[in-house]
Amino acid sequence: RLRREVLFFPSQVTCTEALLRAPGAAPSALPDSCPCGLPHGESSLSRLMRALLAARVSLELCLFAFSSPQLGRAVQLLHQRGVRVRVVTDCDYIGPPGSTRSHLVLSAGIQVRHDQDLGYMHHKFAVVDRRVLITGSLNWTTQAIQNNRENVLIMEDDEYVRLFLEEFERIWEEFNPR
Amino acid sequence: RLRREVLFFPSQVTCTEALLRAPGAAPSALPDSCPCGLPHGESSLSRLMRALLAARVSLELCLFAFSSPQLGRAVQLLHQRGVRVRVVTDCDYIGPPGSTRSHLVLSAGIQVRHDQDLGYMHHKFAVVDRRVLITGSLNWTTQAIQNNRENVLIMEDDEYVRLFLEEFERIWEEFNPR
Ligand SMILES: [Zn+2]
Ligand SMILES: [Zn+2]
Repeated sequence: RLRREVLFFPSQVTCTEALLRAPGAAPSALPDSCPCGLPHGESSLSRLMRALLAARVSLELCLFAFSSPQLGRAVQLLHQRGVRVRVVTDCDYIGPPGSTRSHLVLSAGIQVRHDQDLGYMHHKFAVVDRRVLITGSLNWTTQAIQNNRENVLIMEDDEYVRLFLEEFERIWEEFNPR
Repeated sequence: RLRREVLFFPSQVTCTEALLRAPGAAPSALPDSCPCGLPHGESSLSRLMRALLAARVSLELCLFAFSSPQLGRAVQLLHQRGVRVRVVTDCDYIGPPGSTRSHLVLSAGIQVRHDQDLGYMHHKFAVVDRRVLITGSLNWTTQAIQNNRENVLIMEDDEYVRLFLEEFERIWEEFNPR
């Protein structure tokens, strides 16, 4: 059965430590021991992280804005596990070294390319293992996750994955700095 | 066979007069007579308008920003034809009477509700005849259509339509000014 899920936001920002330690774990796996002060239940954020953390081979990210520390740590973790991670983002939303923007991803040594254009690179999608498309209105920022009305579709769909990967490769080449 | 389409932007802003006069017509139906100066071929914009103009009964719009004159005219036309149109938008993107923002829709007497919240109403979706979901990263502005990298999914899908209509009704009630 093919995966199909819709996430709506705003979502509580819940603790995702359990997920980051053991991707299959329920977020409530460490409620007693964890001193973070955040709620430890399931949330749209934890579901989105779970979909990302399922990656075993490759992850393409095409994101207008990407500054959520939790999502950043998830992507960093995948990179450390040997997943091939490629990130495209908009130049207005990627900071210089030392800024808070995307620093987790950049400092991890993940390949990041960004736009130099007048128009925005306004997509907000990810492709997991060339098999699952994650796309919607949500920019990957704590502000958006916590406060905005947003949607994210998670779809295991060959046709959509193919079309969005083609779009990713076009942008990846277009933003090639060489 | 259920409709599934992906539109990528930027798109040429093509002439959509033919579509507005006869919704089923090819955009090139009046190339010789039309003095507009725009190209008259098919585009992501014309495909999006075609999907909207297929509405016969109802149209729900949940849009962060809605100022494209062409999309505004399409929605106005549907209202004039007796389609039940309801619009939810973000307060930061709806102007006072006389502004260019959304004026086509407002002046047509279409029901519009907007956010008063701190968070953004950041969705960009439409539901046509409770049967087709249109959703993606695209704000309905000429700037975004012409200049940005964007995606729009058009999906005839009962499950997604149901979930997005529920979200629409929640927001519609929440933004009820009474
Ligand atoms: Zn915790
Ligand atoms: Zn024309």
